[in-house]
Parts: sequence; structure tokens; C-alpha cells
Amino acid sequence: MRSAIIAATTMTEARQYLTLPGAFEMRHGGVLESPTVAYETWGELNENRDNVVLIFTGMSPSAHAASSRLDPAPGWWEEMIGPSRPLDTRRYFVICVNSLGSCYGSTGPASIDPASGELYRLNFPVLTLEDVAAAGKALLDHLGITSLYSLVGPSMGGMTSLAFAVMYPDVARSLVLISCGARSLPFATALRSLQREMIRKDPAWQDGQYAADAPPLTGMRLARKLGMITYRSAQEWTQRFGRERTAQEHETGDMFGPDFSVESYLEHHAQKFTGQFDANCYLYLSRASDLFDLADHGGSIDAALKNVTAGRVLVIGVETDFLFPIEQQRQIAKAFEKAGRRVNLVELPSIQGHDSFLVDMDAFRPVLCSFFNGDWQAISNICSAL
Amino acid sequence: MRSAIIAATTMTEARQYLTLPGAFEMRHGGVLESPTVAYETWGELNENRDNVVLIFTGMSPSAHAASSRLDPAPGWWEEMIGPSRPLDTRRYFVICVNSLGSCYGSTGPASIDPASGELYRLNFPVLTLEDVAAAGKALLDHLGITSLYSLVGPSMGGMTSLAFAVMYPDVARSLVLISCGARSLPFATALRSLQREMIRKDPAWQDGQYAADAPPLTGMRLARKLGMITYRSAQEWTQRFGRERTAQEHETGDMFGPDFSVESYLEHHAQKFTGQFDANCYLYLSRASDLFDLADHGGSIDAALKNVTAGRVLVIGVETDFLFPIEQQRQIAKAFEKAGRRVNLVELPSIQGHDSFLVDMDAFRPVLCSFFNGDWQAISNICSAL
Repeated sequence: MRSAIIAATTMTEARQYLTLPGAFEMRHGGVLESPTVAYETWGELNENRDNVVLIFTGMSPSAHAASSRLDPAPGWWEEMIGPSRPLDTRRYFVICVNSLGSCYGSTGPASIDPASGELYRLNFPVLTLEDVAAAGKALLDHLGITSLYSLVGPSMGGMTSLAFAVMYPDVARSLVLISCGARSLPFATALRSLQREMIRKDPAWQDGQYAADAPPLTGMRLARKLGMITYRSAQEWTQRFGRERTAQEHETGDMFGPDFSVESYLEHHAQKFTGQFDANCYLYLSRASDLFDLADHGGSIDAALKNVTAGRVLVIGVETDFLFPIEQQRQIAKAFEKAGRRVNLVELPSIQGHDSFLVDMDAFRPVLCSFFNGDWQAISNICSAL
Repeated sequence: MRSAIIAATTMTEARQYLTLPGAFEMRHGGVLESPTVAYETWGELNENRDNVVLIFTGMSPSAHAASSRLDPAPGWWEEMIGPSRPLDTRRYFVICVNSLGSCYGSTGPASIDPASGELYRLNFPVLTLEDVAAAGKALLDHLGITSLYSLVGPSMGGMTSLAFAVMYPDVARSLVLISCGARSLPFATALRSLQREMIRKDPAWQDGQYAADAPPLTGMRLARKLGMITYRSAQEWTQRFGRERTAQEHETGDMFGPDFSVESYLEHHAQKFTGQFDANCYLYLSRASDLFDLADHGGSIDAALKNVTAGRVLVIGVETDFLFPIEQQRQIAKAFEKAGRRVNLVELPSIQGHDSFLVDMDAFRPVLCSFFNGDWQAISNICSAL
């Protein structure tokens, strides 16, 4: 929701802002005039400008992937980034980009359209993950970075990374693709479509014209709950909650209040989320995930990947992920192998489902550690499937 | 929604109505005064009154499981019931009960409370599957049936059948439990809780006081879509829809209308459902599923089953069911084995998920056929897991 003007007053924060000059053309038509890209960095760019790790995020996180001197709050991938962490900031210059279309500093539907002086809202053009990738590339150009040590993306960020890799096939020397797919499958599309409908059917949404202090909280809370259900696994919830009852009884007269701990848990966490994320941004990013299909680049996945020069590709999947099931990571790995890339496919037995990369650090840390140490043998020893 | 008075005028239909005399006590407190149980039958009761197959349904179907002379419309299990069908009506007298709490003839929240002359709505007492089972038993008592050849239940009907079996351990000589569990797991509870919230958060719900011509259609449609997503499997949808686009473009200005066939499919089928089912009934039946726990009967599943005398237990599960995952059917089968019952556990590879029993007749027909022919060896040859 920040405009470039607000950005200028907050340059002392960890979050940095780049305003792209001129018209930024969107893949499905339309342009953004001088959009902003928000990002954070950790570590130092070396003299050759070739020690860079670029991270594209999942749908809802900001660029604040880890804490720093300027912003000591823990980031969404805190345990992965820092000195002596897998993305070791003594060696690498790590950049995390807030996706174009999001609401954490980058230009999105909740930003002001300079043409009208009003918020974009639904006048924001159709967003694709290719646009998100292009905004990330524009940032690299601005920073004078022509080669990445690695491009890393979990979830939607993994699809954005795939888009980046085929659009700029010589830039990333390695790829780390986590819990993502070469396209959205109908099951995931059905879930996301339903989430979008929950928001759009909330009367408070007002066709996207809601006031800042009256957003469609109910729709967002429902959508978030469905997200939480699909981001984790049934096994985990059985372990965590069993048949445990909520501590307090329903409020009097509330026949359908929560009976079980799992219901209270969802309510608690959905409440936390809904104050933070802009509903229109959510709609655009959610649809961008559905629209993504790697095969759009050349007619097939194989054709899309044929020019990608990355020397190493690490694909990580989780057996309990049913939003991006493990077959999708196998498909990506096989396609890169076919394209002549050296590929490690790691299938992790984490029970936290799609969200495992955010919470099962014990499983993910050694894989990323070995990868960023160049210890391919160690990766092959960890649940490797190739 | 029918009262006993309407019932009397429609006795020529296939649907029959029994009014239970006096106060029907509900498990969690409260009574229903002279509630109605709606049911249909096929075939003839034999002289010994021992050729009866009783069916409890899933959450939303009526008692119209199959067509008949009086009602030629196809039923929800049309291919299973009839002459030379698995439930062969030349041999068996088949009864299907509309669950207490539903809105297809049995008394539920959409029925008139005789104490007030108004609809029960949320004054209906808490509903449990034990109450549904007890209403079924009252029907058997009325019909003078003391022994069942078999008790059959898919989905919620399977849990109702388990409740019936432990409450009346000597009545069913065999059990057929399909795609159900001994309790609801937190994942399924989370989904159902979210469905209930979608309805309750629809402003049209009006705390259950909606007018007959203004029900909470949006909430019901969203809940039905989530149901459809969870009743089927991701694999099936990939096969059916792939990345196929909808035939028509969005309506002008509808930025978030359906892009993909899977979205149009959900919309089409959800529209069909929402006119039919009463929202308050949906809430009660959904919560009854969550509240069910076989272990409530004696402290553990083993304790619950120890007096059940059924000579044969057939448990059928589907590998792609993630609402009642296959582990739940294994658990039921093992518990019956431990209780000394002869058990067949069949794990079917159908890709239609939880709904397979309604649609994958090629997989289910031979299993039920063999069971009702007493051909246990044939069952063991079909994907048997024991």
C-alpha cells in the first residue's frame, strides 16, 4: 500500500525500493507507469558481482525473509539466511523481492495509479508470474547484476523462478525449486478459485472498492482458513490435535461455535492474517498462480527449458504436499534432466505438507546447506530420488 | 420440510413416513415430540422377516436410493439396488432411511416444532449420528423387524451404521461399511467447520431465521464447492480437466470469473445443489459427523465393538479418499478382527476419491455382488487387503 513517496521517507528501514523508469509492460496487456519494486538484501555484493542469490517468495510473504541490523524482526525464512546458515551471508549476497502485485512495498492493486491518483484496485492489469519475474530482472539490471549464483523459489516463488529461468536462460547459474510445479493443476486451481470467490462474495468486498478501514475481513478469513487447511497435511493435524476439545464452551446460543481445538486454531491464525494482506492483491496473486503454465513458453515444458543454462538444478518436494503433489516436482526434475542439466531431486518425508519449507527446518536445512556448499554427494544421500 | 399432515397426502409416492409416538430423546439432551422418519423400500419382506438390508445414507441424499414403480426417477445408488443388482430385490427387502435431521421427509431443523407451531431452525436439539441410528431402529421396531441380513452405510451412513451396531449389537447379522471412519479426523473436521462457517457468514443466513424464499444461497454454494473439491481426488481432476479453458470468456468487467473448465464445472454443480438442501439441516448434519467418535461407546474402539455379534463385516475404502483416508478403514477392519469378527477389507484404486461409491460402479459392483452372494473367496480376490 506504500506509494513511492512514502517509500522515500522509509529508506532507513531494511526494506529498499526501486522505482522502475517509464512504462512497465505487462504480459497479458496493459502497462504500469514507473512501478516500484521492494526488496531486502543480506550480505555483501562481491567485486565480480557474482555471489548473488535471488529469492522469489510464495504468495503472501514480504521481502523480509530474515532479520538484519536495520530490521531485527524475524523473517519468514529466518533460519535459512544469515552467517553460517544455509544461505550463508558471509559468502552470498542474498536478495529477496516482494512480488509485483503484492502489498508489501511493490506496486500492486493497493497502490496508487499515477494516471488517476486513485488506488489501482481492479484497474490493475492482469498479473502473471512472468511479470513478477520481469520485475525481479529489472531490479538485477538496476543493481548491475548479470549473473546469479542461484535463483531460489518456494511455492509460487518456485513457479516465478521457473518463469525467470526460461525468460532469462543465461542469468541463473543454479536453481533451487521448492514445492512448486510447472503449472497449476485443476485441484489447486479449484481451491484457489474458491478462495477468491469467498472474498468476492463477501459484501464488504464491494467489487474491489472497499475502504481501507472496512476490508472484506470475513472473506479473507475464510480464504485464509482454506489456505491453512490445504497448506498442511491431514497427518500433521491428527498428530497435533487428535480429537482434543476446545478449552472453553461455545458462547451461549452459538450452536455452531468451535467444538474442537483444530477449529480454534484455524480461527486464531486466520484472524492474525486478515489484518495484514490486501484483498485485491490476494485475488491478483492467486489468479497469477492459476494462470502459470511453463509450457506457454514454446509449447511444451521440454521446449521451455531447452535454452536454460543453469549448471545445477535442485528440486525439493514434500511427500505430504497435496497442493503441489510430489509428481509435479518429479516432472520438473525429469524435464531438466532431459534438457541436459545436472539435477538433484529430493523428496522429503515431512508431515507439514506444502508449508514444510517454512516449518520443517530440520529436513530442509541440510539439503540447502549441502547445495550451497556444493556438496552434491551429501544431497544424494538425503532422501534423493534420482 | 414435510409435516406428518403433508405426509398423509403423499402416501402414494415411494416415500413412506412413520411418525414415532411420544417423545424421542436426543443423545445430547432435548426431545423431539413425535418425529417423522421418512424411508423407501424395495423388494418384499419374507415370512421370517429376516431378509432385510437397511441402508443409512451419506449426509445429503434422501431415502430415494433407487427407482421403483411408485417413483421411477433414478436414485442415488440406482445401479446397486434392484432385480439382479448387487442388492438383489428378488431376495432382499431393502430399506433406506432419510436421516433424522435431514430435510427429505424426516424431522429436522426445517420441520415444524409441534410445541411452537414454528420451524425448529436452531431450536432443534444437538443432533448426533446415534440419534440418526436410533430413529432407524425405531423404524425397524415399527416394521416388526428384529434382525437384519445386513446393515449398509457409505460415508456418514457408515458412521451411523457403526453407531447402530454398537447400540444394538445383536440386530445386524452383517455390516457393510464404506468410505467411513470410527471418528472424524481433525482434517475433515476443519473442512466441515469451514463449510459451516461459509453458510453462517452469509448475511442471508440471518442466524438461521432465513425465509423459505431467501435462503443463504451463496454460503451454501461455497460450502458445496468445497465439498465437491474434497469428495473427489486431485488425480481425477487432472484427468478430466487438465488445463482446459472455459468455452466462453469472462463477462465484461468480471476480472475474476472462471478461466478454467474446473471452475465452471464447480459453479454448475454447486448451483444445482443449493436449491435443494436446507441450510440449517446441513449445519446440523455436518456437525453430527464431527461429533461422532465410536470410542465414546465404552472408552475405546475395541471396547465399543466387543459385543457386536455380526458374523461378517465388509469394510471398503478407496485409496484416493482424503476425507476418510484408507487408514481409517484399516483401523475399523482391524478392530473388528480383534473383536473376533470375520472381516473383509477391500481397498479400491478408484480415482474418484470419497465419492467413488457413487460413481465408480465398475469397482464397487463386484465387491457388493460377491458379498451379497456370500462369495467371500471372490471378495478376497478383489483388491483385498486382509
